Amino acid sequence: MANPQLQSVLDHIDKDFDNSLERLFSLLRIKSISADPAFAGDCKAAAEHLAKDIASLGVATEVRATAGHPAIVGKTNAGGRPHVIFYGHYDVQPVDPENLWNRPPFEPVVTDHADGRKIIVARGAEDDKGQVMTFVEACRAWKKVTGSLPIDITFLIEGEEEVGSKNFVPFIEANKDEFKADYVLVCDTGMWDRNTPAITTSLRGLLYEELKITAANRDLHSGVFGGSAMNPIRVLTKILGGLFDDDNRITIPGFYDGVQDLPPDILEQWKKLNLTPEMFLKPIGLSIPAGEKGRLLIEQASSRPTCDVNGIWGGYIGEGSKTVIPSHASAKVSFRLVEGQDPQKIRKAFRDYVTARLPGDCKVEFGDHSAAPAVALDWNMKPLAAASKALSEEWGKETVLMGSGASIPIVADFKRTLGLDSLLVGFGLDDDNIHSPNEKYDLRSFQKGIRSWARILAALAEVK
Amino acid sequence: MANPQLQSVLDHIDKDFDNSLERLFSLLRIKSISADPAFAGDCKAAAEHLAKDIASLGVATEVRATAGHPAIVGKTNAGGRPHVIFYGHYDVQPVDPENLWNRPPFEPVVTDHADGRKIIVARGAEDDKGQVMTFVEACRAWKKVTGSLPIDITFLIEGEEEVGSKNFVPFIEANKDEFKADYVLVCDTGMWDRNTPAITTSLRGLLYEELKITAANRDLHSGVFGGSAMNPIRVLTKILGGLFDDDNRITIPGFYDGVQDLPPDILEQWKKLNLTPEMFLKPIGLSIPAGEKGRLLIEQASSRPTCDVNGIWGGYIGEGSKTVIPSHASAKVSFRLVEGQDPQKIRKAFRDYVTARLPGDCKVEFGDHSAAPAVALDWNMKPLAAASKALSEEWGKETVLMGSGASIPIVADFKRTLGLDSLLVGFGLDDDNIHSPNEKYDLRSFQKGIRSWARILAALAEVK
Repeated sequence: MANPQLQSVLDHIDKDFDNSLERLFSLLRIKSISADPAFAGDCKAAAEHLAKDIASLGVATEVRATAGHPAIVGKTNAGGRPHVIFYGHYDVQPVDPENLWNRPPFEPVVTDHADGRKIIVARGAEDDKGQVMTFVEACRAWKKVTGSLPIDITFLIEGEEEVGSKNFVPFIEANKDEFKADYVLVCDTGMWDRNTPAITTSLRGLLYEELKITAANRDLHSGVFGGSAMNPIRVLTKILGGLFDDDNRITIPGFYDGVQDLPPDILEQWKKLNLTPEMFLKPIGLSIPAGEKGRLLIEQASSRPTCDVNGIWGGYIGEGSKTVIPSHASAKVSFRLVEGQDPQKIRKAFRDYVTARLPGDCKVEFGDHSAAPAVALDWNMKPLAAASKALSEEWGKETVLMGSGASIPIVADFKRTLGLDSLLVGFGLDDDNIHSPNEKYDLRSFQKGIRSWARILAALAEVK
Repeated sequence: MANPQLQSVLDHIDKDFDNSLERLFSLLRIKSISADPAFAGDCKAAAEHLAKDIASLGVATEVRATAGHPAIVGKTNAGGRPHVIFYGHYDVQPVDPENLWNRPPFEPVVTDHADGRKIIVARGAEDDKGQVMTFVEACRAWKKVTGSLPIDITFLIEGEEEVGSKNFVPFIEANKDEFKADYVLVCDTGMWDRNTPAITTSLRGLLYEELKITAANRDLHSGVFGGSAMNPIRVLTKILGGLFDDDNRITIPGFYDGVQDLPPDILEQWKKLNLTPEMFLKPIGLSIPAGEKGRLLIEQASSRPTCDVNGIWGGYIGEGSKTVIPSHASAKVSFRLVEGQDPQKIRKAFRDYVTARLPGDCKVEFGDHSAAPAVALDWNMKPLAAASKALSEEWGKETVLMGSGASIPIVADFKRTLGLDSLLVGFGLDDDNIHSPNEKYDLRSFQKGIRSWARILAALAEVK
């Protein structure tokens, strides 16, 4: 432990942990659902609450307007030492279906997981309020114990990550002179497993499309028109049902163009990690990997491109029965993309695929929700080695450098707009139910997450 | 015109038509949606309203309790003359999506169709309140002009046709001694076209299934589990998307077992009717018949078995995007059945088909909404010839004996429980939007429908 003050900081973190938890709870109680305009006031309240908390660390902090939900910008400028941007988001996913939550999603509690772990349960407990607060609390401990932060930090917290950061990215671009730094720290990723820390070194991209297929000009009665009039649900299911071949490969022509196999050394490291269906799928009630045959499960989940229908609807979906042939049917379809895939090309290939399969008298309308390429990070970046070592010291296990299946499009945006690389450290677990009912964050993730950042901050201060 | 009083009855119908229309409107204003328990009071009100109206014809009429919405039973018992049961229903379909109605669905009006026809617009305008009232008004005219009805009639009007008559059929069975008659008149079918009357001589059956496919035990984030966890929408679309082959034939093994081709003479008659896509599909915005290749359009629409997905839902279906892999996905699937198909065998074949295509770690739950076999009526029945002649006289065109694509399961129930054949006469048109927004009934259908029944009643009085 190079830094003589680090042990005191870690001790303070443990001593003050109940207060850290209460501060997290205050943030979790704010219903900052960015997707629903009804919660715009709550988003603003969350920004103001968190900005005030960051300001209390002696950081000059402002809530800044964007064309959407506001962003938080807070800066220290001691100078002559490393300067990082810390990125996170205060907005959360919608909570529906709310009836599947065991408790109200915005009334956080610490409770017992079935296996005995203590967990924090609330919408945003992990994604991303809990994760953001690991960093804020680590800073608070440094400030409290030593009077200052070990490096210069620009806090840059957004409120639209869950809806594609569509107003945040223009905000960064418009103000990029304010955001000069050495690199970015992002806390929105996970651990390898409950005991093994990880740094995420590649992220899949995301293309998210919506389509609506229309057949007749109105809803029809299946007694009159059944058999003679085309049913748009039949068209939609035929098209979507044909997206995978028997080897679970996606059938869209050109979909895999440019997709590379893993470097042999990484493939070897991943084989040794031996991620089994028992470990990864059994907790969610499944046993058979659904991805491409002949690929490791870890490849399917993190380094291979995918397709998922995220929503589908059409016709009568209420109780009972109605013998209707609907006029139209719709779906939301998204693709996780990997390095080498161009989102715009994949979008065109998908739309061509759908259009080519459309009966002559049906029509399709497309809508796009987002398109972000995959990101591969620099495995040799100096801060990565320092952070990796710090994490290993906290958790007592070697840090895994892993690919993430999820997209964090902002990482590509930071590279493009600010020219900065990102270092992705987080403490989420696969069973955190992010984006689902009963989202949780392990109490241990929160506490050791704070301690981890405290160590990383000390380590990064030494990186020249 | 054999009956010397018929012309006076027809004249009275025309003279009193505005009052007939007002009586229909009174019934249309009652929101008797049988599928939604919130409208149970309205269903009762509709039964009481209609029973009172039938009683005003000098018919001993009661509202009778069933295990569901009540039925109306009204009887004349002069004796020594033909005795028929008249069947119809006072319940209507739900009105969703209500925003697609041009006016409130329970505020009937007479308005102009785009092509100049006068139409009555309201939920139930055709199905089945308008049709029922053609018969009631014909009886009223006979009663008014001659002091009595030309034959004995048992009115039997139900309130659960749109939800499968599940309590009405047991009601008939439990009280079958009350329902002795020569045959049944049913007014719930359509004309051949706007100018050509029709009697429906075969009805397709209906099997209506619901299925829910479950994969993971909870909703998942596609960034974490995309590519490795099975998506139930993928399973559902693959299964439903495979229900048709390239010739538009249904792929469920055994589905066509027992299905016969049309008798050559009927096929010839139907060929001469020359139903074209221009006539049948263009009004609904389509041009390509969606049924089995090599079959006439009229066969596809009326004498061939079909399959339609009437509803599908799963995952996130709100505004915007959510990168969720849902835990489950559902669909409502119905089949129009023809003579020779056993609904229970088709149900088993469908369920086997689905189950055989289910990944090993997914599960399926089935629900059934209804199962009724097809009905072929006696083409040589004497009242049919008499009614056919009466209709031809009213409309000035040869009456078409046609197959109907729709199911009226009660026809099979009357045969089974009471041993009675049914004669199906109605004045609906293909563009009536039944079960859809902006349901209508041509004003001409209503007026000439009343006149048609007046003629048929006279003709049936002569059938020994």
